[in-house]
Amino acid sequence: MPVSKIAEKLIVQNRSNVAAPVLVVGSVAFDKIITPVMTGERILGGAASFASLAASYFAPVRLVGVVGNDFEDSFIERFRNRGIDLEGLQVDKSGPTFFWAGEYHENFNNRETLDTQLNVFEHFRPELPERYRQSPYIMLANIGPDLQLHVLDQLEGSSFVVADTMNLWINNKLNDLLKLLKRIDCLAINDSEAIMLTGDHNLISAGWKLLELGPRMAIIKKGENGSCLFHRDGYFALPAYPVTNLQDPTGAGDAFGGALAGYLAAVNDTDFGSIKQAMLYATAASSLTVEAFSCDRLESAGPGLLEERYHELLEVITP
Amino acid sequence: MPVSKIAEKLIVQNRSNVAAPVLVVGSVAFDKIITPVMTGERILGGAASFASLAASYFAPVRLVGVVGNDFEDSFIERFRNRGIDLEGLQVDKSGPTFFWAGEYHENFNNRETLDTQLNVFEHFRPELPERYRQSPYIMLANIGPDLQLHVLDQLEGSSFVVADTMNLWINNKLNDLLKLLKRIDCLAINDSEAIMLTGDHNLISAGWKLLELGPRMAIIKKGENGSCLFHRDGYFALPAYPVTNLQDPTGAGDAFGGALAGYLAAVNDTDFGSIKQAMLYATAASSLTVEAFSCDRLESAGPGLLEERYHELLEVITP
Repeated sequence: MPVSKIAEKLIVQNRSNVAAPVLVVGSVAFDKIITPVMTGERILGGAASFASLAASYFAPVRLVGVVGNDFEDSFIERFRNRGIDLEGLQVDKSGPTFFWAGEYHENFNNRETLDTQLNVFEHFRPELPERYRQSPYIMLANIGPDLQLHVLDQLEGSSFVVADTMNLWINNKLNDLLKLLKRIDCLAINDSEAIMLTGDHNLISAGWKLLELGPRMAIIKKGENGSCLFHRDGYFALPAYPVTNLQDPTGAGDAFGGALAGYLAAVNDTDFGSIKQAMLYATAASSLTVEAFSCDRLESAGPGLLEERYHELLEVITP
Repeated sequence: MPVSKIAEKLIVQNRSNVAAPVLVVGSVAFDKIITPVMTGERILGGAASFASLAASYFAPVRLVGVVGNDFEDSFIERFRNRGIDLEGLQVDKSGPTFFWAGEYHENFNNRETLDTQLNVFEHFRPELPERYRQSPYIMLANIGPDLQLHVLDQLEGSSFVVADTMNLWINNKLNDLLKLLKRIDCLAINDSEAIMLTGDHNLISAGWKLLELGPRMAIIKKGENGSCLFHRDGYFALPAYPVTNLQDPTGAGDAFGGALAGYLAAVNDTDFGSIKQAMLYATAASSLTVEAFSCDRLESAGPGLLEERYHELLEVITP
């Protein structure tokens, strides 16, 4: 049975007991997003929100993060509705939830941060509930590499670890990041971060250099230009799904990472072929994400539409 | 027999009588190219040089252009060595050959024009020798749209016409360009030109809008991010070949266009599947082009290496 068929089955079964669980760790936030067309106030944001919702289409998800005293029950419900295990979601009553405000300019190519209020996220340390310590698939969404290392320190048994990072940590916590890279399986970062981390402006050689830093494989995310995989078994390049109804690019990369880890958990395999299939599903999940504010469309799409996107994407790349 | 096998056969036969001839019209020039690593003085340049050499791997090529009193016989030999028909190459003794100097900055993403001397190209009008007037495949490389229209006016019988253009003509000769678009089959332009021509910053909707301007299909060239096809039978997205040895990006898009038209002539078919195959060969030809100054590597590669690139690219995009 081809891998895509297995995934199809699992998506239809949705959160089937067959799939291995995925642990997602990262930020849960309120966002304010301004685009040329609309403004979204206090919408659900944070890398772990997008990643866990995307992963939930494929496998049982365990979410580790923190929210503050202002986080609404209705938002908690959104995770619950997708069957996400929230034992690891800390509620810190000492202050408000992490808040981020950003604005996209005319062509969506430039994003400007207008405001960042760390709030309860400032002193967050991800602590894994006992039963999360054996998690065969991990998505370390973008948080400080010191915190990502702290997660790895709590694990028991073997895990396949996907990690994301950002320019802030490359600039400010490079030593921790380099330690992290030696302990993960797959680094999934965007193009500008790959260049920054390797100092190489050629994305192809930058990608291979990422592997020299430790991870067994690396995926470079290029937004509307797709993604590419650097793997000991070869190189794979995948265009983006052709989105025309772009509403809000926030979280696309996080949804990509979550769906990637989720798919791998679903098929419980991480060979070259499975990673490539995972990238197709990850691309499908990001394409849905950017078609509405926040996680709205990613959540409401359902497994049928996600599967349809996967097949459309497959057609778009078939010569 | 799958299309790629047909092409394989034709490439091996190389300029076989089976393939329909391709007429290439455009500039032939001397370039001076400065890169972060090297400088090339008075090297062979011009859109029609790259396009005709690339096309010559697939089909008999007829070249229409102009050179001046300083054009070297050794350069003429380079076209002859690839079997290119030069009856349409005018030699204008009244002045020197078109000269262009450009510099690429650190990461090859920005190109600056240092000098443009039109010379004999300034008053060039492409006149087709009688026996070129029936040319089933045409590559109108980047020259003024008024001159491109003048070529079409001289044709007899039906032709499949691919055309390129540039920002200069979008700004200065838009009316002629719009007239041209209604008379061609395939527009092959780069991403910034597609945005400029349609006013749409979303490349996908920009691509579909190009078809509303007249051509039956449009290909947007995105350099290291590959290319995409907008066709009434669907959308196709193709990543670039993973080049690490980038030496000089000049002419990559011209080689792409030439190989595209050449392949279509070789298989003498222009359905959706053939266009997609043509894009793979076109991508292979551009990848060779950028690995050396001028047309050097495109010329020296030979059909075997081109075919190898095609197969590598096919593997790189196969999930």
